[in-house]
Amino acid sequence: MNPPSARPDDAHLIETRVASQELLRGHFLHAMRDTVRLPDGKEATREYVIHPGAVMVVAELPDGRLVLERQFRYPVQAVMVEFPAGKLDPGEDSLACARRELLEETGYTARQWARAGVLHPVISYSTEFIDIWFARDLTAGERQLDAGEFLDVFSASADELLQWCRDGRVTDAKTLTGMLWLQNLRAGAWTLDWVNI
Amino acid sequence: MNPPSARPDDAHLIETRVASQELLRGHFLHAMRDTVRLPDGKEATREYVIHPGAVMVVAELPDGRLVLERQFRYPVQAVMVEFPAGKLDPGEDSLACARRELLEETGYTARQWARAGVLHPVISYSTEFIDIWFARDLTAGERQLDAGEFLDVFSASADELLQWCRDGRVTDAKTLTGMLWLQNLRAGAWTLDWVNI
Repeated sequence: MNPPSARPDDAHLIETRVASQELLRGHFLHAMRDTVRLPDGKEATREYVIHPGAVMVVAELPDGRLVLERQFRYPVQAVMVEFPAGKLDPGEDSLACARRELLEETGYTARQWARAGVLHPVISYSTEFIDIWFARDLTAGERQLDAGEFLDVFSASADELLQWCRDGRVTDAKTLTGMLWLQNLRAGAWTLDWVNI
Repeated sequence: MNPPSARPDDAHLIETRVASQELLRGHFLHAMRDTVRLPDGKEATREYVIHPGAVMVVAELPDGRLVLERQFRYPVQAVMVEFPAGKLDPGEDSLACARRELLEETGYTARQWARAGVLHPVISYSTEFIDIWFARDLTAGERQLDAGEFLDVFSASADELLQWCRDGRVTDAKTLTGMLWLQNLRAGAWTLDWVNI
């Protein structure tokens, strides 16, 4: 019965860096191979992707419907249903990124924002984190897609989206995590601190 | 208002492969760079990690508590709370992998299994999928960790774990997705088809 967060007696779990080597500097992927000291004193290698971090936006329309995207995701060769999301630009603040991505991808601006938390999509081989934002009091406008970006924007009710999470039409982990938040918020079990912009 | 899954008129979204090049063959990471034809006829590159796929096991003890792990995850430099999980061996069946990983990492065997669904942790740069399994009717035994694997096994109630999802002590996306399933199952909103082994 251990508490979940890091504790002073976690030395039997923690790996420490001995050396670090760049494995790959691609157009998009940046990967490292570190040599680490294991808890038993032996050495091992850890290979992982360096990622700048990202945001996801759960944007609620006045009628409670949610702003969603359909986008072809090449690595999984499928059109995926997702909450809007995107990578942090260098030095960019998380909320600024959330506002920018929502506007660029969907055309919406929001007057109220709340940060719910953070998720780590792939803790075994990437440094990526995704800040989870909720947005409401939306105003529709023109989206501003990047060159080479193709996606449909649509809306669905929370009940429809939950049904799709259950039946396998939604399998994107960040979107599933957003639904855990949304469901507990709508049930009144969890709360958010909203800020007006 | 588009339906979520792939449709005949998705040509305005779909990217097709023109060429493929291996970028990296590491000890663990295997990465590709594909040249793709975009929906507008232009070309772009897509870099991604090839992954064999994985499983996650939400194992419920007779008193309803859940089997969890605390493990240092080097890329995020933190001890993470997670449901047991692991990669498919070549040619390995998903359920066989789930049984093997649960036994190796926690020592538990289960007589009842149900596949809830699948999640994709990182659709922008990895082919990885994670099959979501539920397990019950557990028997404790000796775990069989791989060399160089260090993790603590513990248990928590669903209420404790939900609190940790809310307060940021649990941020692993697969575990958060498992909690979406667990919460809807326990509420009776979603169901599973159990098989006895």
